[in-house]
Amino acid sequence: MSSINEYIENNKQRFLDELFDLLRFPSVSADSKYKGDVLKAADYLAEKLREAGADQVEVCPTAGNPIVYGEKTVDASLPTVLVYGHYDVQPPEPLELWHTPPFEPTIRDGKIFARGACDDKGQVYMHVKAFEVMQKNGGIPCNIKFMIEGEEEVGSKNLEIFVRENTERLQADVVLISDTAMISLEHPSLETGLRGLSYVEVEVTGPNRDLHSGVYGGAVANPATILAKMIASMHDENNRITIPGFYDDVQELSEEERKALNNAPFSEEEYKDDLGIKELWGEKGYTTIERTGIRPTLEVNGIWGGYIGEGAKTVLPSKAYAKISMRLVPNQKSDKITELFTKHFESIAPAYVQVKVTPHHGGEPAVTPTDSIAYKAAALAIKESFGKDPIPCRGGGSIPIVSLFEDVLGLKTVLMGFGLDSDNLHSPNEKYDIANYFKGIETIPLFYKFYAQLSKKE
Amino acid sequence: MSSINEYIENNKQRFLDELFDLLRFPSVSADSKYKGDVLKAADYLAEKLREAGADQVEVCPTAGNPIVYGEKTVDASLPTVLVYGHYDVQPPEPLELWHTPPFEPTIRDGKIFARGACDDKGQVYMHVKAFEVMQKNGGIPCNIKFMIEGEEEVGSKNLEIFVRENTERLQADVVLISDTAMISLEHPSLETGLRGLSYVEVEVTGPNRDLHSGVYGGAVANPATILAKMIASMHDENNRITIPGFYDDVQELSEEERKALNNAPFSEEEYKDDLGIKELWGEKGYTTIERTGIRPTLEVNGIWGGYIGEGAKTVLPSKAYAKISMRLVPNQKSDKITELFTKHFESIAPAYVQVKVTPHHGGEPAVTPTDSIAYKAAALAIKESFGKDPIPCRGGGSIPIVSLFEDVLGLKTVLMGFGLDSDNLHSPNEKYDIANYFKGIETIPLFYKFYAQLSKKE
Repeated sequence: MSSINEYIENNKQRFLDELFDLLRFPSVSADSKYKGDVLKAADYLAEKLREAGADQVEVCPTAGNPIVYGEKTVDASLPTVLVYGHYDVQPPEPLELWHTPPFEPTIRDGKIFARGACDDKGQVYMHVKAFEVMQKNGGIPCNIKFMIEGEEEVGSKNLEIFVRENTERLQADVVLISDTAMISLEHPSLETGLRGLSYVEVEVTGPNRDLHSGVYGGAVANPATILAKMIASMHDENNRITIPGFYDDVQELSEEERKALNNAPFSEEEYKDDLGIKELWGEKGYTTIERTGIRPTLEVNGIWGGYIGEGAKTVLPSKAYAKISMRLVPNQKSDKITELFTKHFESIAPAYVQVKVTPHHGGEPAVTPTDSIAYKAAALAIKESFGKDPIPCRGGGSIPIVSLFEDVLGLKTVLMGFGLDSDNLHSPNEKYDIANYFKGIETIPLFYKFYAQLSKKE
Repeated sequence: MSSINEYIENNKQRFLDELFDLLRFPSVSADSKYKGDVLKAADYLAEKLREAGADQVEVCPTAGNPIVYGEKTVDASLPTVLVYGHYDVQPPEPLELWHTPPFEPTIRDGKIFARGACDDKGQVYMHVKAFEVMQKNGGIPCNIKFMIEGEEEVGSKNLEIFVRENTERLQADVVLISDTAMISLEHPSLETGLRGLSYVEVEVTGPNRDLHSGVYGGAVANPATILAKMIASMHDENNRITIPGFYDDVQELSEEERKALNNAPFSEEEYKDDLGIKELWGEKGYTTIERTGIRPTLEVNGIWGGYIGEGAKTVLPSKAYAKISMRLVPNQKSDKITELFTKHFESIAPAYVQVKVTPHHGGEPAVTPTDSIAYKAAALAIKESFGKDPIPCRGGGSIPIVSLFEDVLGLKTVLMGFGLDSDNLHSPNEKYDIANYFKGIETIPLFYKFYAQLSKKE
């Protein structure tokens, strides 16, 4: 057993306890009522970075939630890794579906259940502990910079400003992010691409007030019905999105690339069983792996209007709303898609109603190189700790900031995630396997080892 | 000035104050958290009936909310009027749209703003005060029975049991209800029909848990989108309801009857201006008066699913819901329509999802006779107090119990309502004009006078 593995073994309980403390802060960025908890989570993370040995640790204020920064410069001749992650989490709702409270981390069957357990506090904290492990066992073989933000779940708007204003401080050779999933511990994988995002909220207004559905029903257009019709029209019979121009910029993969993607282990039956569904759905002509990896989507994330309380109320509502997001693939642009959506939504609104489209946030799709030494270092690290070569695959999620790192800092990213698709990200009962947490802490120092070695050779 | 009118004039402030006390109880029947307030409203009403001179006043328990009963038997040879009304109210939501709190009645521009001001506490209380007025001015010229229930807004299920169990006690010659509207004080009208109701809640389930819309989006059917498609399909391009068999039993009116209905004063421009809409909607081939009076409808009263809080959450929801109600016309039957809806909804659900339909409550449509002496008495009363003959018209709302009175008690109903369609029933800022309140108190004793006179002649 290496000294690193021995150190991890001897500190397991503490590494869990500290993560639990971090998970207890309800640092929900979407809802302003959690602002105080967001700040506490940032302070906690800064303190732990300091304790682990980072220098110049700072909770950097922004117009929104602060960014936790810290670094360790070992030697200017060594390569520098910029570790990015986020300490904010998705809202926990619907609360009634959680088996244990979202902000009281609980272990069941070897899994940590809590909002943020995997996305992304659990994965961020692996990096903090891996850093401690290296510091206590001979020192880190690269320079390191941490940049942990608090607004990833709401679009990273202030991080963008921070990055643009701190290009000097953030100079590095590569960005390392653990905010994605692998197929399984048996099938370790590395994500090589992420989808972009365009997120909008729509409001459909009919009459100027809620009406009695008996007195007015049948004679006044119901905005809930109209919204339903508008949403219904946004996918055609092949489940393709009907917004004119939506697919214009979509990068089509070659047959060879598609074949390679579909080589990843995937069982349609297991997938359906896990989700409790009888049939899969999606764009005609593509596999599930393609639908979630290389094809754009349009999803209703929320819909509401009229009376939604207990019992019955016979109301013809004045307004109906939906939150709608589109996942984008290379080379779609978030702003352009938001504009196309808005134009289309306005154009299909019948004269009975008025519509308003409000953009929430967006992000660009990204593809990460598989021929870089950083990617190779990640692959070697995984091979050493898992005993298997990682499978390269495309992720369906979005980390809007990845394309920004490339544009502003000129940095490529390595996506070395240790989560699982089944971790219930953004859902009730989010979890992170304890095994994956410690596998991450074990693998990260190997990445630094190989990255330093490969950099030296170059 | 008659002694009755003088008495009303001298007691105006008290008549208002007492109504305000009644309006202050948030007696919402749809939401069990208001149970205590419902009981207080019932007790208050019973006390006021007793004070006004009613005998055998009782707050009759039921499996749900109690029924307030009271009576005055003057002489067995006189006709007996059964006054029906309800003291429960619709939920006040959405609260943020009220200009003043729903349960703090406030006068603005000669109107009482409060939940229940018109529907139906204001109209019920006219009867209590009219009874007091008669008692204090020579006595009521008929026998009277009051039956004021607390579950009209949720389907009157327990009233039905009460009526079936109390056929003896409820013996009468006619039912008198003030729970409808007139066109205006300038155009007094009497409703001669009510629509029935079938109210259901639907649940559409996709995956067994909320999913990350990036990881799963595009590959798993979104129940919000599927629900939207299902709702969208329920009206065809002529805005006719697509449920097979839905129109089979609909009573078609003759050209003559339709012409008579459309003779009621109605301005499409004023109607649109009042509602702030540019275009009317509805079943092709019918006027607005017909669409809200003699044609059945299907309305979404509420829709919800996914994340509906502040900000953005990228979730693919597990479930989506809607509350849907259908207004029925003679000779449609509520149970049959609920069954047709359920079958149809299940049949159009794609294999990606599971659906559940839960019936909330229903009620039968009703037509009231215009050739009865009770209707004639109401018409004469209105002519005397308004100086104009009332216009007979069909109401779009539902009072499910009207058809029950006919079936179980063998009683016809007179719908002598003093509300206005613009009273924001079931909506924020419900109101009742003070003028209409007092016009009601003035007109009701005239109804008893003419009803007694016409009964004697017969």
